Order: sequence, then C-alpha cells, then structure tokens
Amino acid sequence: MIRFALVGAGFIGSVHAGNLAAHPDVDFVGVADIDPTRSASLARRHATTAIDLDQAFDPDSVDAVLIASSTDTHAEHLRRAATVGLAALCEKPIDLDLDRAVAVVTAIDLDGRPMMVDFNRRFDRDYTQLRQAVRAGEVGGVELVQMTTRGPALPPLEYLAVSGGQMRDQTVHFFDLARWITGEDPETVFATGSVFTDPRVSELGDVDTSVVTLRMPSGALVAIDSARRIGYGYDERIEVLGSDGMIEAGRRHVGAVSRYHAGRVVGDGMHAGWFERVAPTYRSALDHFVDALAQRETLGPTLPEALKAQAIAEAATRSLRTGIPQPIVYPALSAATH
Amino acid sequence: MIRFALVGAGFIGSVHAGNLAAHPDVDFVGVADIDPTRSASLARRHATTAIDLDQAFDPDSVDAVLIASSTDTHAEHLRRAATVGLAALCEKPIDLDLDRAVAVVTAIDLDGRPMMVDFNRRFDRDYTQLRQAVRAGEVGGVELVQMTTRGPALPPLEYLAVSGGQMRDQTVHFFDLARWITGEDPETVFATGSVFTDPRVSELGDVDTSVVTLRMPSGALVAIDSARRIGYGYDERIEVLGSDGMIEAGRRHVGAVSRYHAGRVVGDGMHAGWFERVAPTYRSALDHFVDALAQRETLGPTLPEALKAQAIAEAATRSLRTGIPQPIVYPALSAATH
Amino acid sequence: MIRFALVGAGFIGSVHAGNLAAHPDVDFVGVADIDPTRSASLARRHATTAIDLDQAFDPDSVDAVLIASSTDTHAEHLRRAATVGLAALCEKPIDLDLDRAVAVVTAIDLDGRPMMVDFNRRFDRDYTQLRQAVRAGEVGGVELVQMTTRGPALPPLEYLAVSGGQMRDQTVHFFDLARWITGEDPETVFATGSVFTDPRVSELGDVDTSVVTLRMPSGALVAIDSARRIGYGYDERIEVLGSDGMIEAGRRHVGAVSRYHAGRVVGDGMHAGWFERVAPTYRSALDHFVDALAQRETLGPTLPEALKAQAIAEAATRSLRTGIPQPIVYPALSAATH
Amino acid sequence: MIRFALVGAGFIGSVHAGNLAAHPDVDFVGVADIDPTRSASLARRHATTAIDLDQAFDPDSVDAVLIASSTDTHAEHLRRAATVGLAALCEKPIDLDLDRAVAVVTAIDLDGRPMMVDFNRRFDRDYTQLRQAVRAGEVGGVELVQMTTRGPALPPLEYLAVSGGQMRDQTVHFFDLARWITGEDPETVFATGSVFTDPRVSELGDVDTSVVTLRMPSGALVAIDSARRIGYGYDERIEVLGSDGMIEAGRRHVGAVSRYHAGRVVGDGMHAGWFERVAPTYRSALDHFVDALAQRETLGPTLPEALKAQAIAEAATRSLRTGIPQPIVYPALSAATH
Repeated sequence: MIRFALVGAGFIGSVHAGNLAAHPDVDFVGVADIDPTRSASLARRHATTAIDLDQAFDPDSVDAVLIASSTDTHAEHLRRAATVGLAALCEKPIDLDLDRAVAVVTAIDLDGRPMMVDFNRRFDRDYTQLRQAVRAGEVGGVELVQMTTRGPALPPLEYLAVSGGQMRDQTVHFFDLARWITGEDPETVFATGSVFTDPRVSELGDVDTSVVTLRMPSGALVAIDSARRIGYGYDERIEVLGSDGMIEAGRRHVGAVSRYHAGRVVGDGMHAGWFERVAPTYRSALDHFVDALAQRETLGPTLPEALKAQAIAEAATRSLRTGIPQPIVYPALSAATH
Repeated sequence: MIRFALVGAGFIGSVHAGNLAAHPDVDFVGVADIDPTRSASLARRHATTAIDLDQAFDPDSVDAVLIASSTDTHAEHLRRAATVGLAALCEKPIDLDLDRAVAVVTAIDLDGRPMMVDFNRRFDRDYTQLRQAVRAGEVGGVELVQMTTRGPALPPLEYLAVSGGQMRDQTVHFFDLARWITGEDPETVFATGSVFTDPRVSELGDVDTSVVTLRMPSGALVAIDSARRIGYGYDERIEVLGSDGMIEAGRRHVGAVSRYHAGRVVGDGMHAGWFERVAPTYRSALDHFVDALAQRETLGPTLPEALKAQAIAEAATRSLRTGIPQPIVYPALSAATH
Repeated sequence: MIRFALVGAGFIGSVHAGNLAAHPDVDFVGVADIDPTRSASLARRHATTAIDLDQAFDPDSVDAVLIASSTDTHAEHLRRAATVGLAALCEKPIDLDLDRAVAVVTAIDLDGRPMMVDFNRRFDRDYTQLRQAVRAGEVGGVELVQMTTRGPALPPLEYLAVSGGQMRDQTVHFFDLARWITGEDPETVFATGSVFTDPRVSELGDVDTSVVTLRMPSGALVAIDSARRIGYGYDERIEVLGSDGMIEAGRRHVGAVSRYHAGRVVGDGMHAGWFERVAPTYRSALDHFVDALAQRETLGPTLPEALKAQAIAEAATRSLRTGIPQPIVYPALSAATH
Repeated sequence: MIRFALVGAGFIGSVHAGNLAAHPDVDFVGVADIDPTRSASLARRHATTAIDLDQAFDPDSVDAVLIASSTDTHAEHLRRAATVGLAALCEKPIDLDLDRAVAVVTAIDLDGRPMMVDFNRRFDRDYTQLRQAVRAGEVGGVELVQMTTRGPALPPLEYLAVSGGQMRDQTVHFFDLARWITGEDPETVFATGSVFTDPRVSELGDVDTSVVTLRMPSGALVAIDSARRIGYGYDERIEVLGSDGMIEAGRRHVGAVSRYHAGRVVGDGMHAGWFERVAPTYRSALDHFVDALAQRETLGPTLPEALKAQAIAEAATRSLRTGIPQPIVYPALSAATH
C-alpha cells in the first residue's frame, strides 16, 4: 500500500479524493487545505482525516503527495516534496511562468525521484490506443496530425485573467499530446486567433478561437484548432495520418440513441462539459502513477516533459502576438529526460 | 450488341428505358405499350422507336425482351418470349397466382433459355458484398439472419387490392434474399401481422406491419420485419450472424451532413422512398443480365428461383391467416434448377 | 442514511459491495455469505463487517437487504425480509419455478413494503432515454419493437443446467423491457430456437439461438433475437417503431478509434462481455432503489412485475417445445400492481 | 434545347460527353479534339458528331461550349467563345498564370455573358447542404472552418511539373469553397508544407502535404490540410463552427457494410480515387449551368470568382516559399462581380 496525502480540497481535489479512497493499493492518509472546513468536509466524505501541510509532507507517514491546490502553490509544494523525498503527482502547470517552472525543476534532483504532472488527456482510453498504434508503426511514418479541442462555454473572465491565455491553459494539453504521440519535439509554431465571445477577452490579451500549426523535425505537420465556447458541448478529436494509413480518435457521443424522422436522424450529442468527458482519465492517471511507483510502468508525463509542452505554449503565445511563426526554445535541463 | 425490346412504358418501363439507352452493349430496338402515346413519348426521350408487340417479339430483329408491363401480362409475355426463342428479363412476379406461375414455368423449356426475374435487391451493392462474404465463409455457418424492410407510406388501396398482400408484394424480396444469401430453402414459416394505418387494409385481408420467422434445414433462423408506413423514409437492413462473426448491411443515409447542437446531433436521414434507395439496382440488374447473356456470369434469379420465393410468400400468407407456423411447399419442376 | 446488509459475496455480491460502499446515502452495515471466508474477505475490501444471516435480517440495525445469494435462496430471503419488515433489492429471479415465485409474492404483504427485483437493463442510460421518449409519445403509438440480446460465449454447461433455459435466463430481461417500454402485457408468444454451439445444450432441453415474437393487446409486435455465443463480444440493441417515428438504442462500441486502410475502416468493437457492458446499471439500479426508499421515485421493477416477465418466459419456453404460439397466462395476485 | 459543343475528348471530356448526351435539355451538337481519332471515337459512343474547332465555335449551330481541353488552351477558347457570343462552361483553371488569367477575364465583356468555371466541389450534395445551412444562419456567425482534402496516390511527376503546385492544383478547390461557404474574401494566408512521397516533388519546388490557415475580415479562421498520397483512398471533409452550432460534411464511405469481430468492427472505406468520389458533381455542375442559362438560377462560379480562388492560391504559394503569412492581393476587375 502506498500512503498518499492530498493537498487541495477544491473541485479537482475532491475528484482525486474519490479516486484515492477507491484505489486498492492506496492508503489515503489525509487531505490538507488552506481552508480547514473544506478539508474536514472532504475527509469525512471519504473516511479519511483532515491534516495540515506539515503532516502532508511528513515522510514518516506519507509516501506520495497529490498536489491539487491552487496553481500558484504547485512549485512550492513540488520543491517541498522533493526536499523531504516524497513522490508527487501534480496538477498542471508546474508554474504559469516558464522561468519559475524551469527553476523549480532544475532545483529538484530528479534522479530516481518519481514526479509526474497530470496531463490527464494522455490517459484517455482512445488517445492511449491511438498512441500505441502510432508508436507501433501501424500508420508508418507520421506526416500530419489534426487535433481539435473545443469547450462548451467561455470560462469566467476572472479565471481567464490568471490562466495564462488559451495556449498555456487549453491548447497546452494538445502540445503535450502531439509530442507524446509522435515522439518528436516541434521546432516552430504558427498561431493565429480571434475573439468572438466577449471583447474583454481581447482586453486580457487573450483569444477564444485559434488555429495552431507545428512543424516537427521530420517535416510532420500538426494542426490544432482550439475554441472556448462552441455551445454544442465538449469536443475533442485527433487524427494521425502516416505513410501507411490513418488513425482517428473520433468525437465521443454520450450515448447511442437515435431518433428517426423524415429526412433526418437525431442522435445523442457531445458531453456537456470537459469534466463529463475526461472524468475517467483522472482515475487512469492515478492508476498509472501508482503502477510507476511500483515499477510496473515508466512514469510520465515527467516534469521535464511538462516543461517542453509549456515551452511550446510560450512560443505559440508569441506567434499569436507577432503574427509570424516562432522557433520553439526548449529549456536546457541538466537532468532532463525525454 | 444485344438487341433489346422493352414491353411496358409506365414508371418502371421508363427507368429501364434510360438504362437500356445508356448501356454500351445494348442496341435499344424499341418500346411497346398498350397505350401508343405512352410508348411514342418514351421512345422519343431515349432516341428509339415505338413498336408494337409483334415487333417486340420478332426474333429477327430482337434478341431479348424486357418485360415491364402490368403484372397480369407477365406470364403471357414470358411464354411468348420462350416460344420464339428470346431471352427475357421480367419484372416480378411471374404471376400473382402461384399455380399459374408454376404452369408457365413448367410450359417453358428452360434448357439454355436465359430468363430472369428482376428481384432487384440482389443487385444492391451492400447486399452483394454481404452475400459474397457469407458464401465465402467469412462468418462461418449461418445461424441467424435479421432483415428489415420498411416503406415510408401506405401504397394506394387500389394497388394493395391487387398486390397479393404484404408477404407476396413486399416481403417476397427478402424471402428471395434469404435463400440467395444462405443458400438454403426454408422449411417452415411463422408470420403474424397487424393493421395500424387504415382499417380498409384489414378489409382487404391484408396487414401493414408484420414479423416473419423462417427456419432453415440447417437450423438457421431468419427474422424479417416488414412495415408499410414508417414515416421516416425508406428503411432496409440485413444482419447475418454466423459461427465465426457477424456481417451487417446497415441503414443507408442520404448524405453525411451532421449538425451539432447542445445534447444532440442531427444527421441526414433515410431516402424518401423506395425508388431513391434502390434506383441503382435496376441498372446493375440489367448489367448482370447482359453479362449472363454473354456467358460472363451465371444468370439469376431464374424463374424456378422466383417460384421458390413465391412459395415462401404463399406459406407466410397462410400463417398470417391461421396464426400458426406453416410448412413451405415448393413446386415440383422437372427442369428446375436452384 | 439507509442501513444496508448484503447477502451473498460471490461475483455479483462483490459488485454490489463496491456500489454500497461508495453510495453517499448508504450505511453499509455488513456482508453475509454461507462461506465466512468469502464474506470476511469482501468485507475487508470495502471497510465493512462480515455478519451472519441473523444480523443481516435484524431490523434493529438494518433497513434494507440486498439479496445476491444463489438463486435457490432468493425466495426464502425475500420472505424473511418481508417478515421482519425490511426493504429488499433482490437479484432475479424470485424463484426459477414460477409457481413457487407466485407463492412467495402472494405470501408477502406487499402493501407499502418496498421490494424490487434487479432487472438491471432498465437502468441502462440508453434504454432509459428510449423508454422516456416512447412513453412521452415521441414516436406515437408503438407498432413494432425489435430487440437483440447476444452474448459472447456459451456459459458453462453446469450453469445452463440450472438456468431454466434461454428464455428464463437471458431473454427474460427483454420480456421485462418490452413490457416496461410499451406499457403493455403481451398476449401471445411464438418462439423457435436451435442449437449450434454444443449438442449437450440440446440434451438439457435448451437452445442457444432463438427468435421470439410477442403480440401486444394493441396489435403491436415485438421481435427478439437471442444468442448465447456470438464471438464478437456482447451485443444488445432495441428499436421502437411507432406511428410517428422510430427510436433506436443502438449497438455500443467500446471506443471511437478508427483505423483507415484502403477499402476499409477498422473501428472499435463491442464490449468483451455482458459485465463490461452493463456494469454501470448495477449502480444505477441501487441509486433508484435508494431514491424510491426515500420516496423520490416510484419503485420498480416490483415483485409482481418480475412475475409477469417470468410468465412470458414460461409461455415462450412452452412455445419452443411445442412449435406453436402460446397464450401468456399471468399469475393472479390480490395485491399485484402493474 | 441548348445546343452544346464539347472541346476536348480526353478523360474529363468523356465524362462531360456522357452527361451532355443524357441531359434532357441539351442538344449535343458535337465534340472537337486536336486528335480527330479521339473525337471520332467519343462522338460515336454518344451518338453525336466529331467536329472541328470552327464548328464548335459557330454561333449559328452552337449556343454553349464546354471547354475540357488541355489547361494551356482554356484562355484562348474562353476568349473565342466570348468573341462569337457563346456561353461557356470551362474546366479550371482559366490559366495557370494569374496575370494571363486576369488579362483574359478583363478582355472579355462579361456583361450578360454566361461563363462559368467548373469548380465542381460546389455541386457536391453535402457541401451544397452545408453551405445553404451556413448562409441561412443555422450556425450563427462563422468562427472556424476546418477542411480536409486528401488524395490516394501521388499524381505522375509529369503532371505535377505542369500543375502549378499543390496550392494551385489541389487546395484551390477549397479556397473557392471557403469563399463560397462563408461569403468572405480571406485577407491573409499562412501555408507550410513537406515532402514525404518522392524527393523529386521537392525538386519541382512543390510539396505533397501541407497545412494552410486563412484569416477572414470577420476574424473567422479557416484551416485546410491537403495531402497527395494517403493510401487509404480519397478523403474530403468540412466542418463549420459558428456562434450558434457546428455543421459538418463528414467523410463519405462507399457503403454501409460492417463486419463484426472480437474487439473490432470492419466497415466499408473511402472511395478509391477522386473521380469515384466526385463523379456526380460533374452532372450537377452541368445541370446548374443549364439552369442558369435558362435563368432559373444565378450562374456561378463566375470567372471573377475563379480569379479570386486563384489569387488565394498565389499568396499561399508565396507563403509556402517564404515561411511567413502573406496578404492576399485580389485582381482589380472593372466588371468583376462577387
């Protein structure tokens, strides 16, 4: 049994709490939050204990910490976990500021320290299948990747103001997926975007709809469209075209009910929101982390991998602002592994 | 070039006329009809000649006759074609009365005489693929066949009154398909039906909605649902379940346009009517007939095969009336081939 | 909080244990089994207690009992729950013998006693949607229902020997669904079946592949095909055709990954087995039972409803044996409600 | 009846010949070709006459000319048709060189002269439906358009050498569709491409795989991926995302046959080549042209519209070469209409 402490009892914290409580190999030691009422309530719901941060990071009673607190605390908690020798599973990003994120990762001695950033899309059943097929050479050499990431409604402006913008907040998941699927680090990025939902998005220097093109060293091209408010639900899909075929992780519908009328068939639509669509990936990500701790799988996404996705988002943000393609500059890390 | 005369200038006659005129191996000699205005008009449209019946059956200028006149004349025209040594492609049925149909087929010396009944569903692209796969053993031994045949609107009562009833008029196509796909002659049939559209259908002794079960000698089961008025268009499908897999010729939609709204996706529906759905099969049936005349393919459905489908419809009609399963009695034909 | 005892710690018992442990409104008091090792092990896994039957039926510490023990003990446990005034959620069937099942239900004073049989298919998301649409009149009057129930592999012969046969064991779920969706009690049934998998199935007097036709009082027809061993996974679907349209709960695929090759597209297939397909329905059935206990929903399927489905299976079994349609005789129950 | 002459008896000429011969409102006067053997053979097949160019452009016996000769003769034939007052339906492009194309269109007095360029994709059933829905406001304001255009195999290098490159030859159809669907003229274009098939494509200064992004004046974004050799058939699709929903013209499969195996379902694939996919659009384009001549519809795509699509392809080609986004410069035409 691996002894887990959870840091953060907000919405995502509560999702993790349910998964920690149900996991057969996990001893759910306790949950910490800056609001003790919140941690107490969440602890009660999952038959565990409300603890403070010192207890959460106590290597005598804890093996691994799951960091689901607010974004601005991730770096500090990661550093602390490293210092006391705990494993860590951390919500993305390491830090919104790439320089600070690099500094943290550099400071941590990564050798043998199992630390993972929760880019949860990697654990989607269909994306996993697609990646395995691509890596097994089923489509031959990758030539073109097409990705769609679209959310149902504009997030609150207060959220957008601290989100880092569409590239760093939304599209970054697909920058990570693009690397993970192809095994390549893109060299250049072109991004262009517009604001259709609310003029205040422009005032924040952000966009709500964008198209991104990545070029890989092999010449492979990646096209990603991202939208914040599509109205028809939550919509993601990926196509990978290679020299020997094409593989697609298609749109997911909530059910298989169809109504037949003259001239048209009305089927079940998309999931209402991102959580309905990706909820199972949180459990799968935890499964993977636990398996990696038990040496049954190779851990990932690692901190250096997360930095790479973040570096692509930086360059994409620059391209959005300048209107021209940008080279992608990856951070130099002594201990960095792919 | 094969010299064709067309007998019958009604709706189906005009469909055949277009196909005869466009066929590269056909010399479209002329069209005959009891209404000379109609044949003249149709002939003009396809750059051929209006002729009379004597010309249509003149072996000096005609090689094959396409019989698309009214149902009660089919038998007489078939007999005449046989007598003068013409090949014949005849709309179904040979005769609505099974005894009369048997008498005609018995009277015709079938040896070497290429005569085919236009059970056009056999020439549907998907059904052809499905049958080839089944006959090639792709699903192993056939165990269960599920068929759906549903039309958009109740045909006119005047038509129903002379149609022979749902089994002989509509379901008979699928009796033929069931034999053709499985290679077996069903032994017993159970049919039960209801009237939902118009009480006058009951007064005609007919039904508009029915379920039929056939048992094959091998134990394979065939379930067929037939409906006259479904409102949502024209709907056919076939599933064949075998010991090694299942193959399905699914619903056909008119296009691939989808509209995404919150909670639902609205796609293109079924074809509006039977003709929109099966129009290409008339051309394919003619292609097959021409190829068979040129010895490039084995002719079918033959007259004896058409009689077998009709015999199943007879037994199904008896089952509808008696409420119990009926044995299927096939006509004994000296020259009959499968 | 409702205090639940679980009786039965086999496979289905362990599924229920997980759901009981996770349910926010349930106090999972303990689990009883004839094999105390098994109950101890299951109790440990879900942080509850191994108890004996007297404790499971003790109204001072238990409000509701979930009966998941072997089929031959259901009736006795239901009777005991009724005697001491507990609510009960019971795996189907009440008893394999219809007469004994009727005797139990008659003996129990149903007034106000919340007792439910776990026909879990009713709680499938798609079937629930389909039924709501049908009951709301979306397709008008029901005219034709087509149902498919097919399992991947022949169950062990030892299981088949005590299962009551395909009608009572497998198709009975769809007899219940047919009543629940249409709101009608079928009047007659015709069933015909074959054995393709193993001759010993015949020796048991059973079939592995069958087609059933039900007639409703309104004239609506229901066609059900059932198969035990299809090889390609677990396959269920339902179509309801009405006077104003058609609604379908289609095949469920395990994912949305497609591989495009020349001439063919390879998509994700069906679920491997029944449990993968229907696992969520056990949780939904428990949710419903809890909601009904809290008066938030109307309880069902009730014991009298379960008897009706069983009566249809009896008549279907008679039809299989006699080869002719059979009237369905429903048990007369003083307290029976629809 | 409209009297048509056909110029060009190659592959596309023979497609047009079949459609001209079958069109009820067309009098197919004759076919001209630089190779008289070829025109004689094609004329014979469709019961018309081989003629020379003077006869083809003789306004006493011809009303409209269909120009399907080699690309380098289009401009000259268009000019001649204009001079003698014939209507013209011309294969794309007007001329591979944009300046020469502009010169021809400028020289022709377009007032009332019905001249159309055969961007046949506009006449695809699904694209027509999609455009009507978009123009009717079904998805609100257009925000994002995603287009895919992929061919099965690399065309011969001799063809590529004179094709003008992927943008002018393949993607240009989708530049036209983008304008036609949205009703906007894009302002800037970014294109990036690679060569995966044959290094000689690079030597020609061309690419075989590319991603293009267009920006519309409204801020709407258009992403187009183009590929020359995908192996799995011919693949096109379009999505239009707007403020009120999304509409998709999805992949077209050749049939609806599915084979179910354990874990996977094998369905019918894409069309083998572009012609199988778009063949019906040639007939629909002719129907449209004839209807426009008869004042039943508004003619299009007009010559000025064709120049606009060509101007986008020019800028896209510049972007491919420079690696940065390019403004799109539309030709100034006195008589140009949208």
